[in-house]
Amino acid sequence: MARRRFWKTRKREKPGSAPGTLVGDPAALASQVHLFVFDADTPDKPLGHVREVPTPSLERIRAIFTEGRRLWLNVDGLKDVALIEALGGVFGLHRLALEDVVSGHQRPKIEDYEDHLFIVLRMAVAEHPGESEQVGIFLGPRFVLTFQERPGDSFEPVRERLRRGQGRLRAADMDYLAYALIDAAVDGFFPVLERMGDRLEQLEDAVVDDATPELVGRIHDLKRELLALRRAIWPQREMLSSLIRDEAPHFSSQTRVYLRDCYDHTIQLMDLLETYREIASGLMDIYLSSMSARLNEVMKVLTVISTIFIPLGFIASLYGMNFDRDVSPYNMPELGWYFGYPLALLVMGSCAGLLLYWFYRRGWLRSGGK
Amino acid sequence: MARRRFWKTRKREKPGSAPGTLVGDPAALASQVHLFVFDADTPDKPLGHVREVPTPSLERIRAIFTEGRRLWLNVDGLKDVALIEALGGVFGLHRLALEDVVSGHQRPKIEDYEDHLFIVLRMAVAEHPGESEQVGIFLGPRFVLTFQERPGDSFEPVRERLRRGQGRLRAADMDYLAYALIDAAVDGFFPVLERMGDRLEQLEDAVVDDATPELVGRIHDLKRELLALRRAIWPQREMLSSLIRDEAPHFSSQTRVYLRDCYDHTIQLMDLLETYREIASGLMDIYLSSMSARLNEVMKVLTVISTIFIPLGFIASLYGMNFDRDVSPYNMPELGWYFGYPLALLVMGSCAGLLLYWFYRRGWLRSGGK
Amino acid sequence: MARRRFWKTRKREKPGSAPGTLVGDPAALASQVHLFVFDADTPDKPLGHVREVPTPSLERIRAIFTEGRRLWLNVDGLKDVALIEALGGVFGLHRLALEDVVSGHQRPKIEDYEDHLFIVLRMAVAEHPGESEQVGIFLGPRFVLTFQERPGDSFEPVRERLRRGQGRLRAADMDYLAYALIDAAVDGFFPVLERMGDRLEQLEDAVVDDATPELVGRIHDLKRELLALRRAIWPQREMLSSLIRDEAPHFSSQTRVYLRDCYDHTIQLMDLLETYREIASGLMDIYLSSMSARLNEVMKVLTVISTIFIPLGFIASLYGMNFDRDVSPYNMPELGWYFGYPLALLVMGSCAGLLLYWFYRRGWLRSGGK
Amino acid sequence: MARRRFWKTRKREKPGSAPGTLVGDPAALASQVHLFVFDADTPDKPLGHVREVPTPSLERIRAIFTEGRRLWLNVDGLKDVALIEALGGVFGLHRLALEDVVSGHQRPKIEDYEDHLFIVLRMAVAEHPGESEQVGIFLGPRFVLTFQERPGDSFEPVRERLRRGQGRLRAADMDYLAYALIDAAVDGFFPVLERMGDRLEQLEDAVVDDATPELVGRIHDLKRELLALRRAIWPQREMLSSLIRDEAPHFSSQTRVYLRDCYDHTIQLMDLLETYREIASGLMDIYLSSMSARLNEVMKVLTVISTIFIPLGFIASLYGMNFDRDVSPYNMPELGWYFGYPLALLVMGSCAGLLLYWFYRRGWLRSGGK
Amino acid sequence: MARRRFWKTRKREKPGSAPGTLVGDPAALASQVHLFVFDADTPDKPLGHVREVPTPSLERIRAIFTEGRRLWLNVDGLKDVALIEALGGVFGLHRLALEDVVSGHQRPKIEDYEDHLFIVLRMAVAEHPGESEQVGIFLGPRFVLTFQERPGDSFEPVRERLRRGQGRLRAADMDYLAYALIDAAVDGFFPVLERMGDRLEQLEDAVVDDATPELVGRIHDLKRELLALRRAIWPQREMLSSLIRDEAPHFSSQTRVYLRDCYDHTIQLMDLLETYREIASGLMDIYLSSMSARLNEVMKVLTVISTIFIPLGFIASLYGMNFDRDVSPYNMPELGWYFGYPLALLVMGSCAGLLLYWFYRRGWLRSGGK
Repeated sequence: MARRRFWKTRKREKPGSAPGTLVGDPAALASQVHLFVFDADTPDKPLGHVREVPTPSLERIRAIFTEGRRLWLNVDGLKDVALIEALGGVFGLHRLALEDVVSGHQRPKIEDYEDHLFIVLRMAVAEHPGESEQVGIFLGPRFVLTFQERPGDSFEPVRERLRRGQGRLRAADMDYLAYALIDAAVDGFFPVLERMGDRLEQLEDAVVDDATPELVGRIHDLKRELLALRRAIWPQREMLSSLIRDEAPHFSSQTRVYLRDCYDHTIQLMDLLETYREIASGLMDIYLSSMSARLNEVMKVLTVISTIFIPLGFIASLYGMNFDRDVSPYNMPELGWYFGYPLALLVMGSCAGLLLYWFYRRGWLRSGGK
Repeated sequence: MARRRFWKTRKREKPGSAPGTLVGDPAALASQVHLFVFDADTPDKPLGHVREVPTPSLERIRAIFTEGRRLWLNVDGLKDVALIEALGGVFGLHRLALEDVVSGHQRPKIEDYEDHLFIVLRMAVAEHPGESEQVGIFLGPRFVLTFQERPGDSFEPVRERLRRGQGRLRAADMDYLAYALIDAAVDGFFPVLERMGDRLEQLEDAVVDDATPELVGRIHDLKRELLALRRAIWPQREMLSSLIRDEAPHFSSQTRVYLRDCYDHTIQLMDLLETYREIASGLMDIYLSSMSARLNEVMKVLTVISTIFIPLGFIASLYGMNFDRDVSPYNMPELGWYFGYPLALLVMGSCAGLLLYWFYRRGWLRSGGK
Repeated sequence: MARRRFWKTRKREKPGSAPGTLVGDPAALASQVHLFVFDADTPDKPLGHVREVPTPSLERIRAIFTEGRRLWLNVDGLKDVALIEALGGVFGLHRLALEDVVSGHQRPKIEDYEDHLFIVLRMAVAEHPGESEQVGIFLGPRFVLTFQERPGDSFEPVRERLRRGQGRLRAADMDYLAYALIDAAVDGFFPVLERMGDRLEQLEDAVVDDATPELVGRIHDLKRELLALRRAIWPQREMLSSLIRDEAPHFSSQTRVYLRDCYDHTIQLMDLLETYREIASGLMDIYLSSMSARLNEVMKVLTVISTIFIPLGFIASLYGMNFDRDVSPYNMPELGWYFGYPLALLVMGSCAGLLLYWFYRRGWLRSGGK
Repeated sequence: MARRRFWKTRKREKPGSAPGTLVGDPAALASQVHLFVFDADTPDKPLGHVREVPTPSLERIRAIFTEGRRLWLNVDGLKDVALIEALGGVFGLHRLALEDVVSGHQRPKIEDYEDHLFIVLRMAVAEHPGESEQVGIFLGPRFVLTFQERPGDSFEPVRERLRRGQGRLRAADMDYLAYALIDAAVDGFFPVLERMGDRLEQLEDAVVDDATPELVGRIHDLKRELLALRRAIWPQREMLSSLIRDEAPHFSSQTRVYLRDCYDHTIQLMDLLETYREIASGLMDIYLSSMSARLNEVMKVLTVISTIFIPLGFIASLYGMNFDRDVSPYNMPELGWYFGYPLALLVMGSCAGLLLYWFYRRGWLRSGGK
Repeated sequence: MARRRFWKTRKREKPGSAPGTLVGDPAALASQVHLFVFDADTPDKPLGHVREVPTPSLERIRAIFTEGRRLWLNVDGLKDVALIEALGGVFGLHRLALEDVVSGHQRPKIEDYEDHLFIVLRMAVAEHPGESEQVGIFLGPRFVLTFQERPGDSFEPVRERLRRGQGRLRAADMDYLAYALIDAAVDGFFPVLERMGDRLEQLEDAVVDDATPELVGRIHDLKRELLALRRAIWPQREMLSSLIRDEAPHFSSQTRVYLRDCYDHTIQLMDLLETYREIASGLMDIYLSSMSARLNEVMKVLTVISTIFIPLGFIASLYGMNFDRDVSPYNMPELGWYFGYPLALLVMGSCAGLLLYWFYRRGWLRSGGK
């Protein structure tokens, strides 16, 4: 079976290559750019006006940025290394950060390059519960850039709110937009965990009702996926914790109140994950104990049947012996008795009865389980 | 069996929705308001006077609060989002805190919004030992607001003390009332744990006396409930610890002495929980070892019976063979011996006797357990 | 079997009752008071003089205390709540501390009420190794009060030293007396642990020599008692650690040197406990492996005997068939051979021999254990 | 089988010998020296010029160093203690550091000897995944010295970059070169872990598909190698963490940004290792459960076959008895019935049918696994 | 078997006895004193001169000390409490420290009595790998005193270096001598661990090759010894760590550089210990899995043999029945067929063949292990 090995390390650039070298992953998807431009607050557009530019050219982006507009640029797919390098030039991004964006196997972290903040997040991948996609977020005074490995993300609700002008998003500063994106990425793990909860529930019922060996593989897979999620979410928690503890100058104290909320959500995620992990471990114990209960059942049946019939069979064999009764009166005289056969049956019956009674007393005739 | 899955995450608002959006849970219960008003200390009412207003209108609440009276407002059931929003307006509560109140799946925590303190607690649910109900407490200089998910709570003793004018409750400041409520919520976990202790005791006896597979499910359920309680109580401990360590300006140093007492109680709860968890884990080991002891018993019976009768049966079969004694004197001459049959019986008897003695020496005839 | 459930929470006062309410435990023992008075150091009694007052009245205590004498008052049994309350009045003790004394299920802790220090200790109960008795110690500038749940304690050596005027006890300040009592309480756990070590040793021998299922219960009991002791001693360690780290103004720096020694003893206790716990856990593993070794032994015997005799039995049955030799020369001609029977015996013998040799090669004939 | 015991401690110098004594390991490999000299930045060689001196004499090294050139000296093989001691004299290295270099069983650490920094690293050994080679790095203002136990290392890419003049290596200061070497050593563990991931994957498939006992040994070996790698990498993490936290004056703040990147890589390594370790532990559980599932399968087959045929065999034996029908009409009259034999067959058939139906109902006829 | 119970607590002085009471252990060995005197540095003896005084009288010691000479006094065996008390008087040692020396069951620790430092160490006992001997070291400005429980120690190399005038020992200050002794004690654990590594290696081979139940006892013993060593070494690590972190005024900063080296060695010891402990735990798993693999093997043999012969035996029994063929043509007509017997053999052969093929398909005929 082709199992997904999401826990394996992906091929890295050649070890020892110079730092800051951008080497595109050959398996990366083609890059697609999408732009939101925040127009200046004019009296007639009090809440700020947001324009959407689906696939802007590099020149267009540079022009808009130079005009002094605030913008959110999203890049899906990291194949086009040249484009990413060019964007790095436009917005003055640090090469090490760009290398992290392109290499795409970073842990969530936060790095402060003075004029901009670089945030690495992990985003849930709806179809593959154990996997997570890297999102690189650059936050500057007038821009938010997001780089994702594939199209499809947890940011759609934020885009919707921008388009419909809901909430404080349009009017607020770039740090609030960054917060909204982080929050969306964190919240995107909840449905994934919910589905895992459902699977855990099914496994729990299955283990109690009908423990088949194939369940072990499913429990193992679930545990591995929980492990992988933990690896994605745990450093996110640390990252948010350091964001709150005043270390990031790019977030206003007002936005930091919201980040605290977001931090609470990661703690809830971790809580759930740990609970799931403990329950999954417990399932393995139940499985093993149910296997051993079954073995006991099987062995009891074998023992009861064997123990009853083996002595009976012996008696029957005994009187199947061919000792020559003509030679001696001591040779199997029972065979010649008038009530020999009924007596033999009676002995067998009593023997079986006594054994049954003994088994009954020991409780072996009651079915242990089920 | 419809098992209660209290450990599963409840459905959340749509991920990515704007922060501070109050979305009522469709399954929430209808809201019921209850009010205690603390009249000013006048010379004729030296201990403070407490009036009870069962279902006050919003206007009435606003009026009383504007008059400068101190009050405790309790809301049971969180369906009426509009009411909660209005109350937020009257008392100047932060939207994020209100969102936490309504969403109802928060971990215990404490948040300081300068002019008021927001505390999230978990309260024991008497009927379902593994579950806990969220209580949101707002503490301002002149008010305490409590929001609960369902009617029925651990606060009744506090209400009784208010009504009967016992203790320092009436005369004291709002922070002392808040402490009394936190203390009542914490103490409400003790009876739940006591009942769990009783169940653990029963399981312990059952496992030693008569380990049936169905016990495994009960041990698993108990462990899960202990896990869930731990998840509810552990952050409570952290929260109280931070309240004591001078971080909450809304509690006077005098009240903080009492909070220290309350903190000791959470530590006792955690202590008990951990002890129960270790004992429950030990039970699983005992169960498995008793299963394996039983299997040994069963197998010993089978082995003793089989091992004794199989050689006997073989001898009997041997002399049931039909070799033609007329053809040759070598063909089963034993059948024609004068003492052939008694001799055969003697051989069988000695054989059985020797095996019995061997088993006796190995201690297999003594019953290992029971 | 009526097992002692020392790990269960004892019945508490009604949850939510006002803090500082003294509710006597109905099961508490009658209170007995005992007093040591330290007379002033006069030139003729250079080492201080100690008078013993077996059952002083409350007035007498008050009088002696008002005279300015230093004293140690010990109360055994906590039934007489009124007395305890009155003593609280005489010495100016905090109500919350008195509540802790009476409720009697506190963790070891230390609380500083400015004019006196309140220390909660756990004292070993010689007869029940898993249990511990609460001792409340109040240390003021001129008094030490000790409240115990039952008569019989680890303090006897301290009393003896007081009576005989040994050591620095009489001359020293109250904090040294308090240290001596704490030290005696801590050291009282050593004999209990020694006896547990003996039991562990016996279990260890028993598990290796003759693992019976009843051992599992004994190991479980021992583990539970170690768990309970750990719960009693661990916070004692924390408490002493905070006493040393300069946080307790009631202890002179000179006495704190001695407390450091006492702290070392608790660490030794914890060390021993952890070692015992690990060894006890290891015992369970040995037990299980010895069960499984036995099962293997049993099954080997069954398999060897069955495997050898089943083919022999088959051959015997074969020649017990009654095919009609008169009808056809193909019907069991072996029965008519001259050496038919010896040949059959030879085949059986070779068959058994080959199997025995195969079993010998596989090492199944050597007894695995014992 | 000669298993590699990489986890064993290597023979140390005689315990208690004077510190700073350089005792060459008799098994050490012959020393080979290799030198890179960085020429001064002259206008015509703007990027710095690097000269390579394959096997320089000690005098040559001293001469070059005295000239004021910056250099990187690499020593492979630690047999030539005299040479190492002489180099220590040239560059003014501390004797304790030299002793650590020669003894070759140090944990990764960093020691600041004011005028130079001494760094101990562990480097992956490609052929033996559980082993690691010690690398001692001395970083001074004008030199980097590296001492390795054997030829063959992870530094080749750095040498290539020096030769081809790529990146900032030539122009940069010595701390950047030291960083590049540390980075190369850290990155060298990734391919080793990748291969371990492949082995884990194979084991995972093997355990699920066809669990043979020999797998246990392979899982054990893998776990031991992961343990050994963890022991090598974990202190590396600590070391880098302390390098970043401003404690090392020999690294410029600019280079420290790069070290942060390197630190992230060690955290990724640890993450992977822990994930692998947890998965490997899970494999053992799967193995055990698959063994127990198989035993159940085996026992079911035995039980079904035995249980069906034992009663049939008994009936057959019954009518093989030789009771004398001539003596009495009660002696086995069935043998003389007209439909005796068909009836006996019918009884046997029904008996087998009933048992088969019962087994079918219990689900024993379905194969549990596979 | 008389097992060494080194993990048990030794009999202590009567609990509650006055602190600072020196009670000699009745089982202690007779005290033997040995002295090194460091003569003043005179121009003609530039490296310091060391005189050795094998069994000095107390007066001699006092005289030498009063003369202002530096000295190292070693006491083997702690029976002579009076002597130890007298030495305490000569060098002004604290009574609590002397009590610790005599009682002899202290954890490694360091205590600063202003004018001297008291260090408790544990020293490896070569013959009993799980045991360790207490060494008390007093370090003053002009003296080092060492008290050991028994003769034979790890200090011999230090004595040799003193005698031969090697290294800095003679010229250096007392703190360097103390360091040398600590270092020797720490390094003395390496050979013990090496031997344990050898035993672990043997156990590892034995478990894989031929797992006998007696191995479990040996693994358990090894684990207990590792546990005991851990208990001895772990606090040594803490102690050295606090010595380095500037807390001990009696060590010069120069000597502290050497202590750092010594600290690294304890960390290596702990590393090794933890690795050994994990491997030993893994051995238990391998043992259990090999037991269960063997059981599977045994059961497979039984099942294959039984399953093949039971149906054959049934057929044979069938045609051994004595139904009267004269009475009816339906009574066992097969017996009268011309090819009856060959046909019966054919049926049996096919039956066995089919079963063998089925077993072959399931892989039961291949030997699982070995």
